[in-house]
Amino acid sequence: MSVLIVGSTALDSIQTPNAHNPRLLGGSGSHAAVAASFFSPVRLVGVVGDDFPKRYLQLYKRHRIDLEGLQVLPGKTFHWSGEYEANMNNRRTLLTELGVFEGFTPRLPRTHQTSPFVLLGNIAPGLQHHVLDQMHRPKFVAADTMDLWLNVALPDLLKLLKRIDAFVLNDSEAQQLTKEDNLFTALPKIHKLGPRYVVIKKGSHGSILSGPRGFFICPAYPLRKVVDPTGAGDSFVGAIMGYLAAAKGSVDDNIRRAMIHGSVVASFCCEGFGLTRITRITGAQIDQRVTELSRLTKF
Amino acid sequence: MSVLIVGSTALDSIQTPNAHNPRLLGGSGSHAAVAASFFSPVRLVGVVGDDFPKRYLQLYKRHRIDLEGLQVLPGKTFHWSGEYEANMNNRRTLLTELGVFEGFTPRLPRTHQTSPFVLLGNIAPGLQHHVLDQMHRPKFVAADTMDLWLNVALPDLLKLLKRIDAFVLNDSEAQQLTKEDNLFTALPKIHKLGPRYVVIKKGSHGSILSGPRGFFICPAYPLRKVVDPTGAGDSFVGAIMGYLAAAKGSVDDNIRRAMIHGSVVASFCCEGFGLTRITRITGAQIDQRVTELSRLTKF
Repeated sequence: MSVLIVGSTALDSIQTPNAHNPRLLGGSGSHAAVAASFFSPVRLVGVVGDDFPKRYLQLYKRHRIDLEGLQVLPGKTFHWSGEYEANMNNRRTLLTELGVFEGFTPRLPRTHQTSPFVLLGNIAPGLQHHVLDQMHRPKFVAADTMDLWLNVALPDLLKLLKRIDAFVLNDSEAQQLTKEDNLFTALPKIHKLGPRYVVIKKGSHGSILSGPRGFFICPAYPLRKVVDPTGAGDSFVGAIMGYLAAAKGSVDDNIRRAMIHGSVVASFCCEGFGLTRITRITGAQIDQRVTELSRLTKF
Repeated sequence: MSVLIVGSTALDSIQTPNAHNPRLLGGSGSHAAVAASFFSPVRLVGVVGDDFPKRYLQLYKRHRIDLEGLQVLPGKTFHWSGEYEANMNNRRTLLTELGVFEGFTPRLPRTHQTSPFVLLGNIAPGLQHHVLDQMHRPKFVAADTMDLWLNVALPDLLKLLKRIDAFVLNDSEAQQLTKEDNLFTALPKIHKLGPRYVVIKKGSHGSILSGPRGFFICPAYPLRKVVDPTGAGDSFVGAIMGYLAAAKGSVDDNIRRAMIHGSVVASFCCEGFGLTRITRITGAQIDQRVTELSRLTKF
């Protein structure tokens, strides 16, 4: 089955102490769509300006990503620029030029409105609502978010939580949302806000699922070198949704293996700037790391 | 087989926003010895003053801990006092009175010198060396440490690393020792310093083993409420050593399950002040959480 993914499609200029990488393909939608494409057909909904490089449209196409929902508007593509410290843990935003993204209103082509799996990538909760308003009875809806929306659009986000099946957020966002330092106390509080599945991302410490079958402790794939963690969270949730859309059986039966595949795809994302590494991997390489994660956690 | 454990035996006064617990039984040796006692016979080497409460000697004895190596000297028992913030993550030392611990020289009774498993709990590396000097060909030696010794006794610690099989430290200590932020880069560097097994503790994020059979990613047992994390790391390594001493087969065959048992015993430690919770648990309760951890990580 196919996955509909809405999110930002941006140009990311990423600086580290050793390198400067201008205008890489980025944004939550791009990362999630490429990650999901290893498992399922993907429909991307987003917006770019008329300056958007042709080679990036070709990149999407090589991943068989349906671009019917990608608006191309006169003006500039969303441009984000950030700088990482040597340890790759601390990121500083240097510049945010919204461009055509500022007035973005997701419009779903009729064919997209019946997509069974929907990923509302990290964009304003108002836009995530607007996508759901256009959908006809999706089978499974997941939403990602970021601290910004907890700060500036909490009422919209809280309403959204009542409309989705799965909510993905990181540990500090879970703490901010629930005022609970302990994640295992925070999780039941988040369920009470709506979603049956809650996934908390903890970066290199892995992730935790709380769902109808209880908790799942999902490891991160061990990396000796992190080149650029930008988009790792988007890749993680994109791969989860792609895996779920492709798998036979219930979400409950598949979600743990979906998260393991998410961990693995996110690990490849971190090994290169932007999408440079992840666009070069094969299904066999993903399978190999999944097998390795199984070996690394067996006791 | 039996485990010889050397470490501090202290009285801990622990304050939190909601409670004050004066003069609890504490210290790295006490926590590790009680944790190990669930699996193997334990011989404790340490020192207390003549003010040491009789009830704590009885507590050791209830856990069948051999006290022949516990010196009772005229003077005061090591007393540590600390305060936790509401989130239990930040701890502040209020008071450290070394008492008889200041002049402590571990002396091993002849019967102890042939103990097959040796845990050098967190004390000065000089004292850890002194214990090893008295041992006759132990089968397996593990050492714990703390940031203090990295700062004030690094040459001694580096010499110690060449004499032990397993080194246990936390993530920030691993970073301090190797100048590597990435733990999977730090681990090979620590192996080069001597130990064949390195265990990195990450608190609620679990732990990582690096050994002859590669990495093992060990989860923490999920706790909804942490009452007092003091001694959790000592309990973790104590239980590992107790489990290894009791298990048939090679260390390589058993160390992963040993760490899982360590995680579980440490989780009980965190659920009460000092040793109050852990001294009330049963083997069946430990087994139940081990089974649960297996269920929580399966995919």
